[in-house]
Amino acid sequence: MSAFLMAVNYHGMSAAETDVMVRTMVGSGTSLDFSHLPGPTVDKHSTGGVGDKVSLALAPLVASLGLFVPMMSGRGLGHTTGTLDKLEAIPGFRTAIGLTEFKEILERVGCAMIGQTDEIAPLDRRLYALRDVTGTVPIRPLIAASIMSKKLAEGLKGLVLDVKVGSGAFLPEEDQALDLARTMVGIGEGNGLATVALLTAMDRPLGQAIGNGLETAEAIDCLRGGGPPDLRALVIRLAAEMAALVTRGLHRGEATERATRALDSGAALERFGRLIEAQGGDPIVLENPDLLRTAPETLSVKAEAPGTVVSVLPRPLGEGLMALGGARLHLNQDVDLGVGFEVLVNVGQQVTTGEVLGVVHAREASQLPLGSEIVRSAVVLGEVGGDVVTRKLVSHRIDTSGTVAA
Amino acid sequence: MSAFLMAVNYHGMSAAETDVMVRTMVGSGTSLDFSHLPGPTVDKHSTGGVGDKVSLALAPLVASLGLFVPMMSGRGLGHTTGTLDKLEAIPGFRTAIGLTEFKEILERVGCAMIGQTDEIAPLDRRLYALRDVTGTVPIRPLIAASIMSKKLAEGLKGLVLDVKVGSGAFLPEEDQALDLARTMVGIGEGNGLATVALLTAMDRPLGQAIGNGLETAEAIDCLRGGGPPDLRALVIRLAAEMAALVTRGLHRGEATERATRALDSGAALERFGRLIEAQGGDPIVLENPDLLRTAPETLSVKAEAPGTVVSVLPRPLGEGLMALGGARLHLNQDVDLGVGFEVLVNVGQQVTTGEVLGVVHAREASQLPLGSEIVRSAVVLGEVGGDVVTRKLVSHRIDTSGTVAA
Repeated sequence: MSAFLMAVNYHGMSAAETDVMVRTMVGSGTSLDFSHLPGPTVDKHSTGGVGDKVSLALAPLVASLGLFVPMMSGRGLGHTTGTLDKLEAIPGFRTAIGLTEFKEILERVGCAMIGQTDEIAPLDRRLYALRDVTGTVPIRPLIAASIMSKKLAEGLKGLVLDVKVGSGAFLPEEDQALDLARTMVGIGEGNGLATVALLTAMDRPLGQAIGNGLETAEAIDCLRGGGPPDLRALVIRLAAEMAALVTRGLHRGEATERATRALDSGAALERFGRLIEAQGGDPIVLENPDLLRTAPETLSVKAEAPGTVVSVLPRPLGEGLMALGGARLHLNQDVDLGVGFEVLVNVGQQVTTGEVLGVVHAREASQLPLGSEIVRSAVVLGEVGGDVVTRKLVSHRIDTSGTVAA
Repeated sequence: MSAFLMAVNYHGMSAAETDVMVRTMVGSGTSLDFSHLPGPTVDKHSTGGVGDKVSLALAPLVASLGLFVPMMSGRGLGHTTGTLDKLEAIPGFRTAIGLTEFKEILERVGCAMIGQTDEIAPLDRRLYALRDVTGTVPIRPLIAASIMSKKLAEGLKGLVLDVKVGSGAFLPEEDQALDLARTMVGIGEGNGLATVALLTAMDRPLGQAIGNGLETAEAIDCLRGGGPPDLRALVIRLAAEMAALVTRGLHRGEATERATRALDSGAALERFGRLIEAQGGDPIVLENPDLLRTAPETLSVKAEAPGTVVSVLPRPLGEGLMALGGARLHLNQDVDLGVGFEVLVNVGQQVTTGEVLGVVHAREASQLPLGSEIVRSAVVLGEVGGDVVTRKLVSHRIDTSGTVAA
């Protein structure tokens, strides 16, 4: 298998070969069946980036629209955080529930969230361990097969893929991201799963918060109708795509309006409360997200001169989170759910001397200077009034009929 | 390691990378030291072909010139036979001797012959097992590293490589064979081992006999001053290269004369007798090589029409030997040392109706028709007087100063 993985690295895989691999992986475990539910099942998968807390807001939002979201997520690794860690920042929240309880919660609440289980595509886990030691993790057809085999086994009617592109993504280049998106859409549609992919910006973090508890709090801000505009826009866009994908006769414009209403009316927030209670967590965090901002030491990092924010680089922040203990390089490491960064400026913004660029949240005061350096290295300032180049939040939409640039 | 092998398959290895691999393999086991011997040590390695029984005549011939030949050989596999099997066709001959006895016989007789031992480059055996299951056996830098690591650990002063080229070789194309030869010469010279390679013809079998006992008998014919002219020519050429390579002031012309004299005077034959006795065999076979032609059933295959011998294809004969039980596809199989073929015509020769093309030696009479078919498929007849194309017996000579076409 190691030799096979390396051969794929150099030789690639045709669509037909990838499909055989996907079917083999799906067949290595259980496939879920949710056909008894009163509404369609739909899920979202992100290829991973810095500050991506979309799932926490999206799943209850889509559930509040009458759909069912059986979400299986991962832990953070490397420069990215993971949904499971963010959920566990909520006191009492249990992600280690079995498939039986998962199905029961899904049926009752409309969404449920667990980690990967060995019952679903166990071959994927075995292969991933070999990819890890053979340097073949970032190979596109292997990424596509890994993601799609798990999603195909989830018993979904529809799947929306959030394919990140930019320096903070696993595949930074647009052509690579487009190729991955098309490959995954082809696998999904070829196996009877309605699939749409969006290419979304990861040349800067999504939202302001980086760090597990901070991100959970920001997701709750979003569910309360607030939060950073880019996070809100992406959550609404993905929810609309998911709803339109599996609801006959529902167009995206109408779906967007419904999703917006569900955020602003509190319906999505209420649904998240039911999910938290169902999975053992304390819903008090919904009333007071600051309960999740638990690191005892904070430092505001201020601009030392005026300028234009040319970039907010995601990788220094994602890797800096590891330096603060808030992210892991190996899956068996514990992480500090309280630490992280808030970046309070956006690309293109003019800043003045003394303006707060970001806030460091650390466990020990001794880590604050390092955290400050990390923020400064990520927030790149150029000359006042200078031009900046930045990606559109959603740059492309890929479905079975082709690719449309936004 | 499997992933590494596959990466080499697609990516190749630079000379520096190959050298690191070779040193690692050498360092995984013992290195022999023969500096106490009164003469230089020198060995020959062939990349393998059909009818290649050179080693059996060459080692005692070179020993009779006053040099020391510590020869480590392999078993036959696939369409090629192996020196160990051929030696074991001699009643009583023991190839499974330890390194201590090997060294003792080498010192006393001037040559000794054993199989690969796990004490020498054990990593090579581990890697070979992985190459076998990952389809990376025929990858040139891996072949080069495998051969040269074992030879470098043998404590040699000089090494002559017989790199086969043509349809019966593992690398049939001339450019591939040249590349392998240059790579191996580079590894040898880079590690202080004087190395020369010859590209020799394997577009037809070497000599007439194919099959272990038959080949041993033919090697003895050669040591008695007879045998097929191509076998004799190659044995003398290789002996002269070996002698000239490690003897200061000895030129190849003089070395060729010495080797020819040693064959014709019986000195080489006498040396083989001492080797056979030292390793427990019965030297009576030297007086009567027909004792090695032991298959009970024989059939002469005759031409059904006149024509020109356009080709004698080595692979049908080598693979046909497997069909008769005289060669193995897997190393754990037993082989029948008595069966095989003698091809009595040469490429370019005119044959008349009824002329004997070859002789089948089989265990059972029922196998003779199959054997006959194999000979007919190998001996390709064209129109009378037609042109033929065939490789020169020795087409290129490669040493540290470059490649010379013969």
